[in-house]
Amino acid sequence: MSKGRLEAFSDGVLAVAITLLVLDLRVPEPGTGDLARQLAHMWPSYAAYAISFLTIGVIWINHHAALARLREPDHTILVLNVLLLMSVCVLPFATSLFASYLRESKGEHLAAAVYGAALLVMGVLFVVFNRHILINKVHLLQPELTAERREELLRRNIAGVVPYALATALAFLSPYATLGVTAAVAVFYALPATTGAARRQG
Amino acid sequence: MSKGRLEAFSDGVLAVAITLLVLDLRVPEPGTGDLARQLAHMWPSYAAYAISFLTIGVIWINHHAALARLREPDHTILVLNVLLLMSVCVLPFATSLFASYLRESKGEHLAAAVYGAALLVMGVLFVVFNRHILINKVHLLQPELTAERREELLRRNIAGVVPYALATALAFLSPYATLGVTAAVAVFYALPATTGAARRQG
Amino acid sequence: MSKGRLEAFSDGVLAVAITLLVLDLRVPEPGTGDLARQLAHMWPSYAAYAISFLTIGVIWINHHAALARLREPDHTILVLNVLLLMSVCVLPFATSLFASYLRESKGEHLAAAVYGAALLVMGVLFVVFNRHILINKVHLLQPELTAERREELLRRNIAGVVPYALATALAFLSPYATLGVTAAVAVFYALPATTGAARRQG
Amino acid sequence: MSKGRLEAFSDGVLAVAITLLVLDLRVPEPGTGDLARQLAHMWPSYAAYAISFLTIGVIWINHHAALARLREPDHTILVLNVLLLMSVCVLPFATSLFASYLRESKGEHLAAAVYGAALLVMGVLFVVFNRHILINKVHLLQPELTAERREELLRRNIAGVVPYALATALAFLSPYATLGVTAAVAVFYALPATTGAARRQG
Repeated sequence: MSKGRLEAFSDGVLAVAITLLVLDLRVPEPGTGDLARQLAHMWPSYAAYAISFLTIGVIWINHHAALARLREPDHTILVLNVLLLMSVCVLPFATSLFASYLRESKGEHLAAAVYGAALLVMGVLFVVFNRHILINKVHLLQPELTAERREELLRRNIAGVVPYALATALAFLSPYATLGVTAAVAVFYALPATTGAARRQG
Repeated sequence: MSKGRLEAFSDGVLAVAITLLVLDLRVPEPGTGDLARQLAHMWPSYAAYAISFLTIGVIWINHHAALARLREPDHTILVLNVLLLMSVCVLPFATSLFASYLRESKGEHLAAAVYGAALLVMGVLFVVFNRHILINKVHLLQPELTAERREELLRRNIAGVVPYALATALAFLSPYATLGVTAAVAVFYALPATTGAARRQG
Repeated sequence: MSKGRLEAFSDGVLAVAITLLVLDLRVPEPGTGDLARQLAHMWPSYAAYAISFLTIGVIWINHHAALARLREPDHTILVLNVLLLMSVCVLPFATSLFASYLRESKGEHLAAAVYGAALLVMGVLFVVFNRHILINKVHLLQPELTAERREELLRRNIAGVVPYALATALAFLSPYATLGVTAAVAVFYALPATTGAARRQG
Repeated sequence: MSKGRLEAFSDGVLAVAITLLVLDLRVPEPGTGDLARQLAHMWPSYAAYAISFLTIGVIWINHHAALARLREPDHTILVLNVLLLMSVCVLPFATSLFASYLRESKGEHLAAAVYGAALLVMGVLFVVFNRHILINKVHLLQPELTAERREELLRRNIAGVVPYALATALAFLSPYATLGVTAAVAVFYALPATTGAARRQG
């Protein structure tokens, strides 16, 4: 398997998943009420759309950074990549669930926890994916990285998972806490490189 | 991040967004009335489909022209690109909203304004994206452009945003004005190169 | 604009459009009747799915053949390409319309005519697209083709449009005639190269 | 037709098909019952999502392995490829059908059989596709493979179809048997290369 085709397929899946998020923005049926009020009432959908879009965008950036270090994929990397993509493709569902229940008085904690957990699973699979590349496939890396550098990259990856665990746990307190934490993570990774975001990649 | 993968991902997202527009064309349920009349009644959906399709097509052309000048993307370009794509991916929703309300007597001004504003935001993000490439990343440009040429490109970009601001403002007069202006912009950019359209790119 | 990115975007749009056809296959709601009968009753959807899938597949093959002759696209080619893709992206809608009305006693002629016309428009736009490449852009062709060869390619293209005109006209006699003609065209172009199909490309 | 564009289009179609699977995960309407119970009740959808996602992922890996052996595609390969993709694109429908009926007391056998049959057809078309490459197009192979090696690859391919035939037949005993067999196949092919999975490719 050439790396090029692995990237092309991954780019394709991530591109479709990120674009399908818009299907959660539903047009209010004409004649069912004041449009301005209805559109304003949909704000959780906009917020969830923006967070998930940014998050998948960041995963795409990091996915590329991880693959850039690899000379050639093996079967395990292909399978781990499919599992990682499977977790990303669940996000349109989890996003829609989260947005639909955010202001409900029943099910809102569970829906937020599912959203947090979906991001957490994605983050953990990314660590597993990257760990396999950095630790098990040292001989396939380009250019060679020192053991310190590889451990540092991995440590940062693992640190990136913590906020998602927090977002999941906080869901049982308030779904708005989940919203806040996941939004903060997305914005943090999107910050300009000068603040160190570029180095956070990987 | 190689430019190739940035283009591949962007192409993927734009391709999905442009194709999802068709989901707004809904087949009338058999047995619910005269099909010819029902299909004719859907004309705002056809018009909005065509305008948005052409507009995303033009954005794709311009996006390529902007990236063609760049040797290598940095983190800020990646993030600005994700934001730009986010605004494009909202278009299937905004298009559907616009088409659904065009002939309604309530909500039609707001729906048209949302459509105009969605195009305006996309245009502004494109200016920001291109400005970062042309002004902040001069050292990453290929081939080198004179300061005059870069300012000229940017000035044209900014000029391209004006009609969308107009389309948004006119929505409060009549949604048909928004339709007309956005259609005119799409057709203008699609005109043959001999009339100068090629030079308008960028 | 590099040819590579033109192909990548076109491949993306065609890939999404061809895959969206499956959304027209709807799962019967459990508990609403005998599943075997319901699935059998959906046969127009299967037939329309297969015809449209093969047709878009053939368009993709021919699109590539047309671009393979080109060294470098110009602005007009880009715009004609966007228009061609726009007509392809309408096919999931036209396919669904055709399948939904095939066995109805009202609207079936119009729905079949719309399907035939959608294929006809696509065919005509392909001729326009290819004509621009073969006639207007002779200097951009690779390798150079003789005037005879170029006219021959174009004549075949135009001949390929005739059955779609027929399928549209026959819709007013019977939608099954439209089904038969469009199916025959799709199968004809998919026949093995040894029967001359490869030479039909273009 | 360059192999690159054949791969790009196939990657695109497979990427869209795999991502559309998520549309089968539907968010329960707020206020229609206990969310936890509703989400738990959806487990057949999760299982079917995971099985189909892994299966398409494996098909993608094998598709690449098959094309990697080819120097240049001919018209027959293009058409067989379109037919193979057509069978893959049916999977979101078959998956949704299977998940919707798994626990029903009517139609569950047929729905499971359709799912098994869809996978079986896909497997058979893959054998036909690969057989054409390995047997008919020997002169287009790179590097050259011995007749033994080619027959071995093909024998493995055919062996891979057997479980799908079994899954289809077992559907008439119990849809859970179909679920078990198809899940086992997906997991088997995803196992690490050290157990021989990499050699199973192709």
